[in-house]
Amino acid sequence: MIPRYSRPEMVKIWEPATRFRIWFEIEAHAADAQAELGVIPKEAAAAIWKARDVEFDVARIDEIEAVTKHDVIAFLTHLAEHVGDDARFVHQGMTSSDVLDTCLNVQLVRASDILLADLDALLAALKRRAYEHKDSVTIGRSHGIHAEPTTFGVKLAQAYAEFTRAKHRLEAARAEVATCAISGAVGSFANIDPAVEEHVAKAMGLTPEPVSTQVIPRDRHAMFFATLGVVASSIERLAIEIRHLQRTEVLEAEEYFAPGQKGSSAMPHKRNPVLTENLTGLARLVRMAVVPAMENVALWHERDISHSSVERMIGPDATITLDFALARLTGVIDKLVVYPETMLRNMNKFRGLIHSQRVLLALTQKGVSREDSYRLVQRNAMKVWEEGKDFQEELLADQDVRAALSEDEIGALFDLAHHTKHVDTIFARVFGDA
Amino acid sequence: MIPRYSRPEMVKIWEPATRFRIWFEIEAHAADAQAELGVIPKEAAAAIWKARDVEFDVARIDEIEAVTKHDVIAFLTHLAEHVGDDARFVHQGMTSSDVLDTCLNVQLVRASDILLADLDALLAALKRRAYEHKDSVTIGRSHGIHAEPTTFGVKLAQAYAEFTRAKHRLEAARAEVATCAISGAVGSFANIDPAVEEHVAKAMGLTPEPVSTQVIPRDRHAMFFATLGVVASSIERLAIEIRHLQRTEVLEAEEYFAPGQKGSSAMPHKRNPVLTENLTGLARLVRMAVVPAMENVALWHERDISHSSVERMIGPDATITLDFALARLTGVIDKLVVYPETMLRNMNKFRGLIHSQRVLLALTQKGVSREDSYRLVQRNAMKVWEEGKDFQEELLADQDVRAALSEDEIGALFDLAHHTKHVDTIFARVFGDA
Amino acid sequence: MIPRYSRPEMVKIWEPATRFRIWFEIEAHAADAQAELGVIPKEAAAAIWKARDVEFDVARIDEIEAVTKHDVIAFLTHLAEHVGDDARFVHQGMTSSDVLDTCLNVQLVRASDILLADLDALLAALKRRAYEHKDSVTIGRSHGIHAEPTTFGVKLAQAYAEFTRAKHRLEAARAEVATCAISGAVGSFANIDPAVEEHVAKAMGLTPEPVSTQVIPRDRHAMFFATLGVVASSIERLAIEIRHLQRTEVLEAEEYFAPGQKGSSAMPHKRNPVLTENLTGLARLVRMAVVPAMENVALWHERDISHSSVERMIGPDATITLDFALARLTGVIDKLVVYPETMLRNMNKFRGLIHSQRVLLALTQKGVSREDSYRLVQRNAMKVWEEGKDFQEELLADQDVRAALSEDEIGALFDLAHHTKHVDTIFARVFGDA
Amino acid sequence: MIPRYSRPEMVKIWEPATRFRIWFEIEAHAADAQAELGVIPKEAAAAIWKARDVEFDVARIDEIEAVTKHDVIAFLTHLAEHVGDDARFVHQGMTSSDVLDTCLNVQLVRASDILLADLDALLAALKRRAYEHKDSVTIGRSHGIHAEPTTFGVKLAQAYAEFTRAKHRLEAARAEVATCAISGAVGSFANIDPAVEEHVAKAMGLTPEPVSTQVIPRDRHAMFFATLGVVASSIERLAIEIRHLQRTEVLEAEEYFAPGQKGSSAMPHKRNPVLTENLTGLARLVRMAVVPAMENVALWHERDISHSSVERMIGPDATITLDFALARLTGVIDKLVVYPETMLRNMNKFRGLIHSQRVLLALTQKGVSREDSYRLVQRNAMKVWEEGKDFQEELLADQDVRAALSEDEIGALFDLAHHTKHVDTIFARVFGDA
Repeated sequence: MIPRYSRPEMVKIWEPATRFRIWFEIEAHAADAQAELGVIPKEAAAAIWKARDVEFDVARIDEIEAVTKHDVIAFLTHLAEHVGDDARFVHQGMTSSDVLDTCLNVQLVRASDILLADLDALLAALKRRAYEHKDSVTIGRSHGIHAEPTTFGVKLAQAYAEFTRAKHRLEAARAEVATCAISGAVGSFANIDPAVEEHVAKAMGLTPEPVSTQVIPRDRHAMFFATLGVVASSIERLAIEIRHLQRTEVLEAEEYFAPGQKGSSAMPHKRNPVLTENLTGLARLVRMAVVPAMENVALWHERDISHSSVERMIGPDATITLDFALARLTGVIDKLVVYPETMLRNMNKFRGLIHSQRVLLALTQKGVSREDSYRLVQRNAMKVWEEGKDFQEELLADQDVRAALSEDEIGALFDLAHHTKHVDTIFARVFGDA
Repeated sequence: MIPRYSRPEMVKIWEPATRFRIWFEIEAHAADAQAELGVIPKEAAAAIWKARDVEFDVARIDEIEAVTKHDVIAFLTHLAEHVGDDARFVHQGMTSSDVLDTCLNVQLVRASDILLADLDALLAALKRRAYEHKDSVTIGRSHGIHAEPTTFGVKLAQAYAEFTRAKHRLEAARAEVATCAISGAVGSFANIDPAVEEHVAKAMGLTPEPVSTQVIPRDRHAMFFATLGVVASSIERLAIEIRHLQRTEVLEAEEYFAPGQKGSSAMPHKRNPVLTENLTGLARLVRMAVVPAMENVALWHERDISHSSVERMIGPDATITLDFALARLTGVIDKLVVYPETMLRNMNKFRGLIHSQRVLLALTQKGVSREDSYRLVQRNAMKVWEEGKDFQEELLADQDVRAALSEDEIGALFDLAHHTKHVDTIFARVFGDA
Repeated sequence: MIPRYSRPEMVKIWEPATRFRIWFEIEAHAADAQAELGVIPKEAAAAIWKARDVEFDVARIDEIEAVTKHDVIAFLTHLAEHVGDDARFVHQGMTSSDVLDTCLNVQLVRASDILLADLDALLAALKRRAYEHKDSVTIGRSHGIHAEPTTFGVKLAQAYAEFTRAKHRLEAARAEVATCAISGAVGSFANIDPAVEEHVAKAMGLTPEPVSTQVIPRDRHAMFFATLGVVASSIERLAIEIRHLQRTEVLEAEEYFAPGQKGSSAMPHKRNPVLTENLTGLARLVRMAVVPAMENVALWHERDISHSSVERMIGPDATITLDFALARLTGVIDKLVVYPETMLRNMNKFRGLIHSQRVLLALTQKGVSREDSYRLVQRNAMKVWEEGKDFQEELLADQDVRAALSEDEIGALFDLAHHTKHVDTIFARVFGDA
Repeated sequence: MIPRYSRPEMVKIWEPATRFRIWFEIEAHAADAQAELGVIPKEAAAAIWKARDVEFDVARIDEIEAVTKHDVIAFLTHLAEHVGDDARFVHQGMTSSDVLDTCLNVQLVRASDILLADLDALLAALKRRAYEHKDSVTIGRSHGIHAEPTTFGVKLAQAYAEFTRAKHRLEAARAEVATCAISGAVGSFANIDPAVEEHVAKAMGLTPEPVSTQVIPRDRHAMFFATLGVVASSIERLAIEIRHLQRTEVLEAEEYFAPGQKGSSAMPHKRNPVLTENLTGLARLVRMAVVPAMENVALWHERDISHSSVERMIGPDATITLDFALARLTGVIDKLVVYPETMLRNMNKFRGLIHSQRVLLALTQKGVSREDSYRLVQRNAMKVWEEGKDFQEELLADQDVRAALSEDEIGALFDLAHHTKHVDTIFARVFGDA
């Protein structure tokens, strides 16, 4: 976790104090269920809840762990310092993994909720800017080369659709890890009734894991982190789009610079897309959790502990980084400075040439053979390309072209509205309300 | 694609002939829609379907492509050789990507259907063997070390639950890529009506892509291949379980060897778990598609072609390998030779020692302090561990133990049924019908 | 392996016929050594070499393997069909791994030699074009934004230096895998003298593996494939540079188009950088071998076979793809169309503004405070930026500027030679002969 | 970075205070060179060194950065607070990247030195234990199945050879990143003489980067982190070997447990190989730096900043984790508890059966046909396998066997020394001094 790429709410989920709070809740709810089953006295369960408002002393727990070499035992020992003698009824029939794995899933579920809220904010920003630029015509580019016109709003609508998918994927990923295991050693329930698991699961907003084997199976977490990697890749895509648009030669949009903010030097044009470049790197960081999370799946027999160190790192790192990246991207989109005039100017770099396909098509529809049409278009196009002429003027002056197409017909072929006539359709598909 | 790790049905999906067949269907359905819209003559659309039963000549198409340097044009040229003059109405307003991307998704959907059927077969085998060994008691192992008893059926039930999740994930992944784009250059529908896309989508069993930008967005494919990687990781887990069980020192189960089949040498015990070792490697191969599929997401602007070479490789390789691996795993499970007696013998390697926790618990429940209980258990356990004594006999002979526990009570602590009493619960959760 | 991304010489290394030929050589050299040691008759060793010119019948070997289920035994059986009775002296004391692992390393060494030759060709092309454009001034860009001038030759010199490093790395990688193991079961030499290994190693151009454990340790191969991944990443870097330069708005260089070659449409400007886009994808393909090669290292005990399926795939795929990519990149560089005039025109997009830093520095050196200098520069720069004025003209007309700097001094600040004065130094460092 | 998986010396390299110290040294050495060139006053250069013993105030620098939004400027501002007016001569003609990239490489070089020392310690432990167990015969296992005997010392010698390779690789990786760039904007040396770079490089123990383009090219760092990934994979291999050996059923070696240390429960046999399991996870963590480091190579044009966030994470994380892992592995090897008697007992699980191959070979050498020999061996072997008989006794009692082999000859075939006769050879190859 790198402070400069993190936000407090997500960081808090991964702090020791939060972890101990979740452990407490798991233990206390389990005690309730055990009391209900008559395994422990009801008074004992009630006594445990006395620690409900305790701010657990992380330093003290660390101190105990330095002796016991076991984090859950250290916590339970500290808990006893608050609860007193009834503490011996805590954790009955449970293993450390019951607490640790259920806690990890609670943390991932909470992290998911923040990420889902992040996505909502991003989607709102994308929608607002998409409608704002619904009709801002810009050149569509394939291979980095001018192709045919589209609108800037459509670009953002695409991103909206992509992040809507990201949201659905993340909801599915959240469900993957929203499980609870209170099943004891090797998951056999030998010393704890399945009813305890059911109670704790419900209380913690989870569902019982159908078969845990002391640990919750790690295919769930592999799917979770793989999903974060896909979401990060979508962030990278939009970040790279903006980096391209901000290039000196393109400059159709740029990240917001505060009025008094200096560029990196004396040069006023030197405004660098550093936020989106950073997002490109952050996407790589989120993605790097994917492979180790998959390597974590194949634990030996009922469990080994090789996954643990990996999760201590990627649990916080991937969620904190993705949260930060989503928020940063939302800010970039929200305040993105867009230059529709530059879009039009760039589009017309080769004056009128982007319409050559339509001219070609019109000629063939008028009965000119495809070969002749191509020749006619190309000879005029080359004058635009090589001599900087205006394509429409050249066509109007070409008698062979005029033999097939009238001045009005030629003019109509240069109508940008032709390319944007289905923007409403696309917006209706994406936003459902155009 | 490696022939020895592939099965014909999946391979067929990726053969040129299949691809051309799908291209034909996309073009022919598009022509129907265009005819309906009055863009092309109805007779022309009908004429195209005359090629319905043509076996396209792959070599001839390759020959044309060698000249045109363009695969879709080569195909259309070849199609014209069958359809005649009406062929000029094919592909109107479309781009190559409309055909290529929709075709890729058709292939991935078909591949998904095979993989889903593979999973059904695997699940059936797991279920059958799980019930067969529902009560085959075996030691559960944490960290590779004996922990407490479970049953071999529970192990397989866990796998069943895991592959049930795999199936749900794969269904979701199939839905991710079941989209169709017929939207023309930069996806603007400038020269083709969205109705064509809707018609083709329906005819091909797909849904229209809300916003394509000449290409179908690659976050869908990233999610698809990430899912295959997770499924492969679950295969690896089960494969490693079996490899462990077949170790010489464990030998609780082993891959089937045909009666006449020789081991690798003169040694009859030299039966190697080569199928599951192979599955371990195949899992790595499937997983290696995950990262490049994510790197493919960030295409430049409306499209670049960097994803194409990657997909030419990972499309076939990942699906073919996973299909083969699932089928191989099904075969392994189906015919796995299981040795319940060895399971019991291994469990008892340290005679009765796996019950030490229960003894400890029982002593404390009788009012012996935890410290004393631990000391009592340990002094008897050490005789088992170091001198090969029988734990139950030692306990019975220990007067301090007997002061707290009767002979019957001690005997009851060694009852394996204690550990398996919730197997029914677990089976009911997993199979829903216990 | 994808035919369209492969070249015959590299493909040949991985063909069955080549593999069998290498197996034969290993066996025949081993027989020589065994004969020398007196383990087998000298006549037998001589007899084996009679098969020296045999074209092994791959179909026949496959046929035998279908029965024996063992590739090396199938080969030996076929070999016996050529060698006759003396064939029983072949393979004495050896295991299949001796043949398989040594063969794999021979293949990787040969693949390295091709890749090294590829790099030599690429380096030659880069050097030629670097000198050709040593003085072609172009804008250096940081963050995609114009920064300060450099030359196109320097860009290529950077690539030359990077691929020189690639060559050294590949030489080291070649050495990593240039080992031979003929050590028998578990590598103990129990049934074969180490002298055999030494003889075969020398004959095959390898060195003996210090400790093989039936297999050659896979950390060697992990390092090999990791190195290929780094080389591929350098290819990606240069490919992306060219893709950027070919963008419609930049167009400072572009991939060669044959005179008669059509762009993708009627538009003459539609020349897509498809080769470098393809190289971007190929780099991802080469890189995907890296992680599974590392996962292959941790074989169980003396060996397991999980690495085998991975290597069957990545051995050919990574080397064939990298060979193709290097050759393609060499072709791109060799024929790259460079537009120095456009470079100058782009550089001057904001007329003279790239010199603003030098002006700022000059003012401060004349004793103007840094704050005042910045203000003076900025007020003139903004007129360039916002009104399209010429920076030098504005400065000359600014009385406050002129109070510090003469006309000549201002003119000197716009001298491009200032930025290129160390190009010779850089070339001398890179090429050693400027 | 996770405190529990880190060691202070490596952590220190990555602390802000260390970074600022390195920045200071780079700036001060650069000032020396600039003074030598006459660019700045010699007194100014001397004045800067007055801050030589200053403990930079990290909090103060952070405070300034919060205003300037630029880390290097914040540092220089703080430096001026110590140096006074002469501070304006610091950083002349340099860019932030000159400081940042050179500093990163200094940090990586120092990290390499720690890692190399770690490897020396590991090698020493491996060598000591290898000689200690040079003759401890143990079964070699292929596929997890007993194969033929080797010694535990040979296993460790293999690891020694592997980590010797790791050391050579790491030395090469250190050289890759031991470069310095002081070349100004876009690396053109326009405002700084190459002599400054040469001076700083020498002073900091680096070599000048032949062509930097404002940044040091990232193929170097890709190679560095790829190498760490390979070293980590070798750690994983040895860790998994130990985990296997500690399995309950094998128990030929185990991680050291302090005399008073409790296992995880009342069960004295429950000693878990948690250190090596942890190493398995740590290996995954180190490896996850490899792919993003490769993705970092393809920066846009002369530089973009996408690599920066990645390196802020993987720079510390990968080196700190690998340092910790190497030290932990050294501790494990150093104190590994080895059970040679268990090795012999396990080897003989199927009484004498591991010698079946030698018997087979001996029979054929006596002229018995291969088919007959196999049949004779197998019929006796099956009695061992299925009925628990002793293989040697069965052979001695088999008249057909005895017809070919005398009692002495049979006895000789069971001599373990046959399998260990080349241990000296192997040790001489690995340690060069046997």
